[in-house]
Amino acid sequence: MVRWEPGAAERLQAAALELYARQGFEQTTATDVARAAGLTERTFFRYFADKREVLFAGQEEFQQGFLDGVAAAPEGGSALDTVAFALDAAASFFPDERRAHARLRQSVISANPGLQERELLKLAALAEGIAAALRARGVAEPRATLAAQTAVTVFGVAFRRWTEEGEERSLAAVEADTLADLRALAGALG
Amino acid sequence: MVRWEPGAAERLQAAALELYARQGFEQTTATDVARAAGLTERTFFRYFADKREVLFAGQEEFQQGFLDGVAAAPEGGSALDTVAFALDAAASFFPDERRAHARLRQSVISANPGLQERELLKLAALAEGIAAALRARGVAEPRATLAAQTAVTVFGVAFRRWTEEGEERSLAAVEADTLADLRALAGALG
Repeated sequence: MVRWEPGAAERLQAAALELYARQGFEQTTATDVARAAGLTERTFFRYFADKREVLFAGQEEFQQGFLDGVAAAPEGGSALDTVAFALDAAASFFPDERRAHARLRQSVISANPGLQERELLKLAALAEGIAAALRARGVAEPRATLAAQTAVTVFGVAFRRWTEEGEERSLAAVEADTLADLRALAGALG
Repeated sequence: MVRWEPGAAERLQAAALELYARQGFEQTTATDVARAAGLTERTFFRYFADKREVLFAGQEEFQQGFLDGVAAAPEGGSALDTVAFALDAAASFFPDERRAHARLRQSVISANPGLQERELLKLAALAEGIAAALRARGVAEPRATLAAQTAVTVFGVAFRRWTEEGEERSLAAVEADTLADLRALAGALG
C-alpha cells in the first residue's frame, strides 16, 4: 500500500515545472520529479499517468468550468454571447497570481512538439464539449461548432497574450479585447 | 532496386480507402492494401510512411494551394477578406467529382481517434502556415492568428457539411455560407 502524502500532487507539479523549465522536458524523468519533490516514483504514478500529464493536471476542472459557464449564460443572447459569458467564467481560473506559473508552463510546452500536440488535443476536446453544450441550449449546427471553435480560438490567443512578458491586463480583459478584434475582423469582411 | 509502377500511389490510395471503409482501418494492414492494389508491401512503403499517411496524401499540395491563395489575395482588404480569397482558392481542390471520395474518406477518419488526431494536427499546421503568410503580408498579431484560425475553422466546418449526405452545394458555396454565419455570429455579439 502507498502511504498518503499530503499535498503530493501539488509538490510533484511544482517540482516538474521547475525541472522541465531548467533542464528540459525530454531530459527529465518521472523519477527525477519524484525525487525533487521528496517522493517516490511509485507515488508519482499514483497521481499522474505520465510525465506529460503533470503539466495538464487541473485541465478537466478548467474545462468543466468553461462548460458550466456555457450552461449558466443568460438565455436569449446569441451563441457568441453565450461563449463570451463562458470565456469570462473560464478566466476566473487564471487570476493574476497564476500568471508567472502559467508563463513558465507555456514556455515548457512551446519548447516541445509532443506537449504542443497534447495541448492541441485538449483544446479540441474542449471545443467539442462547448459545441455539445451549445446544442443542448438549442443552438443549431453549424452555428454551435462555429461558435465553439471560435471560443477556443479566442481563449487560446488571449491566454498566449496573457502569458507574454510585460502583459499586465487580466485574462478576462485580454479575452474581451480579443473578442473585439474578432468582431472587427468579421465585420470588415467585404 | 524497386521497379517503377505507373500510378502506384493512386492505386494504393484507392485500395486503402476501399479496404478501410469496408473492413475498418484497424483491421487493415499495409500488406492488405498493397495486395489489393496488385503491388508489394515494399512498394507501399516507398510511397507512404505508414497506413495513416495514405489518407493524407495530397494534403501538402492542398495546404500549399491555401497558402498561395493568401499570397495572391488582392491588397487592401482586411485579414478576413484575404482569408476568404484563400478559402475560395482552396475549394478548387475539391470539385464536386471528388465529393463521394471525400465523404468516404471522412467516414473512415471519423471512425478512428488516431486518424482524427492526425487530421487535427494537419489543420493546426495549416493554421500556423496561414498566420505566417498573413504576417508576411503585414497583418499584425494577434489578428493574424485570429484570422488564420478562423479560416481553418470555417474550412473545417464547411468541408464537413460539404461531405454530408444530401448536400449538393459546391464547397466554395458552403464556405461562403459558413463565413456569412460567422459574420452574423460575430456581429450579434452584444
